[in-house]
Amino acid sequence: MTAGVSGFRFSGIAAGIKRNGRRDLALVVAEKPAVAAGIFTRDLVRAAPVVVAEQRVRFGTASAVLVNSGTANACTGEAGMQATLDTTAAIAKALELRVEHVLPASTGVIGLVLPADKVIRTTGELVSSLSPDGVDAFAEAILTTDRFPKVAHAEIEGGATILGIAKGAGMIHPDVGVAAPHATMLVFLFTDAVIGRDALEEALVQAADATFNCVSVDGDTSTNDTVIALASGASEVSVTAEALVGPMTQVCDELARAMVKDGEGASHVAEIRVSGLTTDGDAHQIAKTVATSVLVKTAMFGQDANWGRILAAAGRAGVHFDPARACISVGNVEIVHDGLSVGAEAEQRAGKIMAGESYTIDVVLGDGPGKARYLTSDLGHAYVDVNAGYRS
Amino acid sequence: MTAGVSGFRFSGIAAGIKRNGRRDLALVVAEKPAVAAGIFTRDLVRAAPVVVAEQRVRFGTASAVLVNSGTANACTGEAGMQATLDTTAAIAKALELRVEHVLPASTGVIGLVLPADKVIRTTGELVSSLSPDGVDAFAEAILTTDRFPKVAHAEIEGGATILGIAKGAGMIHPDVGVAAPHATMLVFLFTDAVIGRDALEEALVQAADATFNCVSVDGDTSTNDTVIALASGASEVSVTAEALVGPMTQVCDELARAMVKDGEGASHVAEIRVSGLTTDGDAHQIAKTVATSVLVKTAMFGQDANWGRILAAAGRAGVHFDPARACISVGNVEIVHDGLSVGAEAEQRAGKIMAGESYTIDVVLGDGPGKARYLTSDLGHAYVDVNAGYRS
Repeated sequence: MTAGVSGFRFSGIAAGIKRNGRRDLALVVAEKPAVAAGIFTRDLVRAAPVVVAEQRVRFGTASAVLVNSGTANACTGEAGMQATLDTTAAIAKALELRVEHVLPASTGVIGLVLPADKVIRTTGELVSSLSPDGVDAFAEAILTTDRFPKVAHAEIEGGATILGIAKGAGMIHPDVGVAAPHATMLVFLFTDAVIGRDALEEALVQAADATFNCVSVDGDTSTNDTVIALASGASEVSVTAEALVGPMTQVCDELARAMVKDGEGASHVAEIRVSGLTTDGDAHQIAKTVATSVLVKTAMFGQDANWGRILAAAGRAGVHFDPARACISVGNVEIVHDGLSVGAEAEQRAGKIMAGESYTIDVVLGDGPGKARYLTSDLGHAYVDVNAGYRS
Repeated sequence: MTAGVSGFRFSGIAAGIKRNGRRDLALVVAEKPAVAAGIFTRDLVRAAPVVVAEQRVRFGTASAVLVNSGTANACTGEAGMQATLDTTAAIAKALELRVEHVLPASTGVIGLVLPADKVIRTTGELVSSLSPDGVDAFAEAILTTDRFPKVAHAEIEGGATILGIAKGAGMIHPDVGVAAPHATMLVFLFTDAVIGRDALEEALVQAADATFNCVSVDGDTSTNDTVIALASGASEVSVTAEALVGPMTQVCDELARAMVKDGEGASHVAEIRVSGLTTDGDAHQIAKTVATSVLVKTAMFGQDANWGRILAAAGRAGVHFDPARACISVGNVEIVHDGLSVGAEAEQRAGKIMAGESYTIDVVLGDGPGKARYLTSDLGHAYVDVNAGYRS
């Protein structure tokens, strides 16, 4: 059983939204209104729950998060918006909360309206099963194509705790920010630390930029990506943004790695580390282009140290570097030195490393200070199977 | 037998570069120095033959193009450059041409040096088999993972002719331009019209922008993309750029469609047509993002009218539009109207259209004049098979 964090109760039930009868409705409630921050998808196409959650989280406090899987409630127009408003209102009523303190999140198929009646009908059950020990039920109820639930813990200096719960396996290429939010990645972070709203948001943005925004399964951003952080203050341990960002990044990194590992049909995770550029931004652009290259990802599936694809992807990223100075290593095996192949024997050794579940690919493109990393997964037959048939 | 075009002789032989013994060396020679124009990959990483061909084509005339398949001769440093210089010198010597008039092109695996000795050893055979009727041998010798050769013809007003020969099936997302060229797409255009160098280049740039630069199989641009046009003048029919651009675009469009149809492992081709934006550039950006979306391409494989993926991809293209006004049709079946699903029955009918070999997807995002189109192929198991094992 996964431990909770003081000040929060969790539940997760089967409300009949998913056709297969699995858990599909999750709720977390703070004992007292919690300090809240959220960042959301930057896709122009945004689901109703994203629009509503973004508005409500601006108040800086929240008491509950209602999450459903099975439908993203995206591209569902007025009916979808009404369903989000009605279901959060039902939760607010049952718990005697202000409706603005109930944040919604949805994940699943786009274009399907959230069946509000099913949520409202099961609100009693959802609320009555709330428990400090309900983390696992919550984590299970938010899954869609995920193969396993994703939770992570870290301790904060002074004795407070942070817990993260996430879902995400496909349509994973998050781009979340404060300016405008986006989500098939859902991440919920709970801490019992005492912290102000601005500090919480500052830590959240930093942690997300260093982790979720450097992750790609398929290069497609979702209409529903949501990251919400709530601080209950129940530990009575006051922390600054600086003190929180470390543990929060640790939790987010663990969740991000779990999402890539669970990448639809993925069997290998590579951490692409790009360095030697003029700026971190340049390095990020190259790391992203390599990490989202379909040819690189199929080579990963084939356990083929096909550095030509890596270098060609880097070359089309729109950032200047000298290909004749490029060095590429898989794990600790250098396969390209100063733009040239080290040799077939090195490539074979690199291929053996690529048989592993997870490995690094270092791409050094000069001696500048700019560096970045990106997590990516392989693209093989299982990915095709999951995504060609997901709706049917 | 494919007809040639007056003023040119073609050949294609097996020089032993490919391991499987197939034709891998091609030559075309103009009877007199031809007017020449070329555009090349804009990837920063560029093969030796691209660097050399780009330099030489600037003279505005050329007499021969030497093409090999089996190795891209990219990322091969000084040894690769020397091989390109030596092999074109051998052809120049055998045909008594200036070496600057021999343009090289290569396609195949990155990182493998062109085996100059094999080319030099077979130069006699290559030259002696030149024939006005050698188009098919030439077209075959430039193929790599292609399932079929690609040739197209068009008539030019006044009685001249244009012939196009292309190869390309994977690593197809060309971005070719005059400023800086990029190539696993190789295209050679031959006309017997009389035309100046600048006019030929103008027609070439326009035709390529409207065709090859709107095509994607896997979103990966190559280190070797090359498009070369030669005009022999043998018809004695003078044409302007305006007169040439129509037939040239027709030939390029036919070749581009053949490349997408032959996309590695592809069984469906979709023409993504985006309209209603402020500018053509905005529309192009959205069309490109949709056409390269891995989720859209796997939905094509699954024959699933999954418009949510189309709309979400459009939304992350970085271009503003109002999702609530989006209309999407597959063939003549509208599946999204004003941002909302038309219904399950329409999606089923659209799914039937997607069972076909080729179809259109119209994405209307407003009432602006900006429009663009992009050709793309599905991504299924066969694509994974081809690309996970290509080098082995």
